[in-house]
Amino acid sequence: MEAKKASQSITIMTELVLPNDTNVFGNLMGGRLMYWMDIAAALSAQKHCNAPVVTASVDNISFENPIKLGNVVHIEAKVTRAFTSSMEIHMKVWGEDLTQQYKYKSNEAYYTFVALDPNRKPRVVPQLVTETEEEKKLFDGALRRRQLRLILGGKMKPDDAAELKALFVKD
Amino acid sequence: MEAKKASQSITIMTELVLPNDTNVFGNLMGGRLMYWMDIAAALSAQKHCNAPVVTASVDNISFENPIKLGNVVHIEAKVTRAFTSSMEIHMKVWGEDLTQQYKYKSNEAYYTFVALDPNRKPRVVPQLVTETEEEKKLFDGALRRRQLRLILGGKMKPDDAAELKALFVKD
Amino acid sequence: MEAKKASQSITIMTELVLPNDTNVFGNLMGGRLMYWMDIAAALSAQKHCNAPVVTASVDNISFENPIKLGNVVHIEAKVTRAFTSSMEIHMKVWGEDLTQQYKYKSNEAYYTFVALDPNRKPRVVPQLVTETEEEKKLFDGALRRRQLRLILGGKMKPDDAAELKALFVKD
Amino acid sequence: MEAKKASQSITIMTELVLPNDTNVFGNLMGGRLMYWMDIAAALSAQKHCNAPVVTASVDNISFENPIKLGNVVHIEAKVTRAFTSSMEIHMKVWGEDLTQQYKYKSNEAYYTFVALDPNRKPRVVPQLVTETEEEKKLFDGALRRRQLRLILGGKMKPDDAAELKALFVKD
Amino acid sequence: MEAKKASQSITIMTELVLPNDTNVFGNLMGGRLMYWMDIAAALSAQKHCNAPVVTASVDNISFENPIKLGNVVHIEAKVTRAFTSSMEIHMKVWGEDLTQQYKYKSNEAYYTFVALDPNRKPRVVPQLVTETEEEKKLFDGALRRRQLRLILGGKMKPDDAAELKALFVKD
Amino acid sequence: MEAKKASQSITIMTELVLPNDTNVFGNLMGGRLMYWMDIAAALSAQKHCNAPVVTASVDNISFENPIKLGNVVHIEAKVTRAFTSSMEIHMKVWGEDLTQQYKYKSNEAYYTFVALDPNRKPRVVPQLVTETEEEKKLFDGALRRRQLRLILGGKMKPDDAAELKALFVKD
Repeated sequence: MEAKKASQSITIMTELVLPNDTNVFGNLMGGRLMYWMDIAAALSAQKHCNAPVVTASVDNISFENPIKLGNVVHIEAKVTRAFTSSMEIHMKVWGEDLTQQYKYKSNEAYYTFVALDPNRKPRVVPQLVTETEEEKKLFDGALRRRQLRLILGGKMKPDDAAELKALFVKD
Repeated sequence: MEAKKASQSITIMTELVLPNDTNVFGNLMGGRLMYWMDIAAALSAQKHCNAPVVTASVDNISFENPIKLGNVVHIEAKVTRAFTSSMEIHMKVWGEDLTQQYKYKSNEAYYTFVALDPNRKPRVVPQLVTETEEEKKLFDGALRRRQLRLILGGKMKPDDAAELKALFVKD
Repeated sequence: MEAKKASQSITIMTELVLPNDTNVFGNLMGGRLMYWMDIAAALSAQKHCNAPVVTASVDNISFENPIKLGNVVHIEAKVTRAFTSSMEIHMKVWGEDLTQQYKYKSNEAYYTFVALDPNRKPRVVPQLVTETEEEKKLFDGALRRRQLRLILGGKMKPDDAAELKALFVKD
Repeated sequence: MEAKKASQSITIMTELVLPNDTNVFGNLMGGRLMYWMDIAAALSAQKHCNAPVVTASVDNISFENPIKLGNVVHIEAKVTRAFTSSMEIHMKVWGEDLTQQYKYKSNEAYYTFVALDPNRKPRVVPQLVTETEEEKKLFDGALRRRQLRLILGGKMKPDDAAELKALFVKD
Repeated sequence: MEAKKASQSITIMTELVLPNDTNVFGNLMGGRLMYWMDIAAALSAQKHCNAPVVTASVDNISFENPIKLGNVVHIEAKVTRAFTSSMEIHMKVWGEDLTQQYKYKSNEAYYTFVALDPNRKPRVVPQLVTETEEEKKLFDGALRRRQLRLILGGKMKPDDAAELKALFVKD
Repeated sequence: MEAKKASQSITIMTELVLPNDTNVFGNLMGGRLMYWMDIAAALSAQKHCNAPVVTASVDNISFENPIKLGNVVHIEAKVTRAFTSSMEIHMKVWGEDLTQQYKYKSNEAYYTFVALDPNRKPRVVPQLVTETEEEKKLFDGALRRRQLRLILGGKMKPDDAAELKALFVKD
């Protein structure tokens, strides 16, 4: 199985905020945004592995600016690292007011997907080749984020998370 | 402002998985579930603060079992702790196949909401009173999770996260 | 086939009224509410019989108070009585304005569902065991409501509806 | 205020049953159909009174034949009688399989709407003029159905429902 | 295969403009209207050929008047001419403000559908019989519109479009 | 008002075909695609003029290949030419089966939008600057397509459409 470039998985999604996507303030609801992000990330993962995928986990997301009714949502998704059968996808999300020519950041997020074979069992995915500095940095951080996911999911003990532990303990 | 009990914020949501909620495997898409969870958590937060709220952040979510087309989604949301103007909400999510009488866990999650005044500025919310053992445990853990959120959001240095650091460094 | 308790069929649904659910007054449309009630009642019926069900009929519904955009809809559904292959489900529906801490009744309703076997033929369902006074009262009234349904559906003559006739004719 | 003909209120709605409208049997869910019927009836009522309307009540509905995925739903709505500020609307609903040239009855139903003024108070509506035999029959029956609605809604005693009582008591 | 009358294919669709169908001006979005028109035209085509159909092409549509939130959309579709396996459907679309008793034209359009057999190959459809003057005129114009479609689709040279050429070249 | 480059208006939309978007063959319905194209084109037009826009017309669309359930829809929209207050947008639409690594053309289309001022009157938009060969070709063709639109809309006589007439009459 040949490794694939991170750039091959880039997925760009553009959505318009409609009335039913908004809360009483006329701002995009967080849940509706996470729904779009889930689809963008799934498509990016599928571009990498060319197999059906399912959402395995979502990392902490912090919403910075509200996105208004009638504004545009831009989602850019790209695979950061491939593990045996899972892939971490990084997303950048902006809002844009086209009439005011004002573009603003909403959030960054990491979703993890698992590729499945026709029997719905995990299947091996291609490894990822990074090219840019940003891709390399995201690739390196993926290990630490994975440890955090495993600890938070109760599948790893903090002591075994060497990469993550280094953040707190400086020898 | 009078403190309120955690139990006053309990919100129970029941949804049926319809065709458009599913992926090619006929399983509920992660994004659609996060959308429902966002609404359940928002209602729980509103029960606590009796003011409009917006999603501030979502903690790591790990999806354990797929929920099938025609199955039922159960979401139970409850406030775990109130900070100045924000509230952390804990959710338990199950799937259920009613014809097979089979109920299974999907995930647990923490969403954080901020209460807003009519000028869309954060407003103070009531403190939380815990009663059960589980509520007390969730209340205590909320501080550690908050530190993790702030670190992951780049708003706190790992060294300042005393609660969280204790997980990695045992004196 | 073992009889089941009414309380085992309780289904609690909580929905948020979004813009597309409302009419020009910003109030929840009756049809959208009946859609949610149909799902809540179907889930309650399935909890009782553990088989797929289809809507057979809906009794008179009278809408008392409008439910506003941004308010919450609470639906509580419970089986009142099981006949050979059909079940009557009783629902109570409230609206709630969480910011104003104001809860108000919308309506009460009875839906009837039929359980189907894999060949889509009616199948026998468990009998219902009542425990509370309210459950007993609903159980007793179910016969009269069924006669009314059959008369209105042209499947019974008024003279044969002994239970119902007693309302009009006192000996 | 000039009386209007029943025929002026005829509203014909045609809908296609899509995947998300169906249950596990691939049949149209009763709740989705009641949603469409609510809109068809509201438009018919508005044609009669030329004012905004809200759903006041729905009479017993009995679903006769399931409507399949990909089939067509035909709804024909017409005002049967106007009271002071309310209107009763009669609907006939058919399903149709266009490839098999098979048309079948789903149900008949009566919805009641109230016309509102700009302050959301009930406003007087035009009286109804009937022309055909069927219209006259529906007009006459409207009084009896109204008594039944009032009794079922707890707003009239059975003894005061002369029209309805006659069904059970023959002198 | 027996020819069928144009009038047998008439399909009347009535839709209510809801919040999520509208742009920032509170007017029906063109894309949402084209979606409804596609369904109305497909049903009309299916009435004619009694087989599944797929959209082959859409002719120029010019939107004349905006349709407002809360207004009604009327679509009337009818087959104008049948070719070997395709059918041209003509639609008239109006908006209506029922409270103001104001009805206005939105657009006229031609959609073309192809009938498919169970292997998804084009299948022969019945010829069309016209009765009224308007039907005859639409039938005659169908040839010219078809030539234009073929030229615009790059499947015919302008020189071969005798019917269409006559519009520009008078001998 | 400064002219703007065509490339500044590029809008890329990526959508996943879900069950409710499909017909009985499991293929994307033409109307649903036109809905997405309308939004993509509107956003492209807004990028050019930075003002609200409404759909004025849609040119002939010919659908070449069906897009399947679970496949991806790619829409790329770009302004081809600006007239006084209207803009023509060109779109290319592909489907893609990510698991089979198969990308296929669906259609090309031209939508025309009008920019509106706050009083909903047409407002002047910036002129368009073309850079690539393809942009220049689309710019030149825009005049001919506009004449065709005006003729088809009954607003221009064939004799006055010099650009278009040249296609049929060679001196």
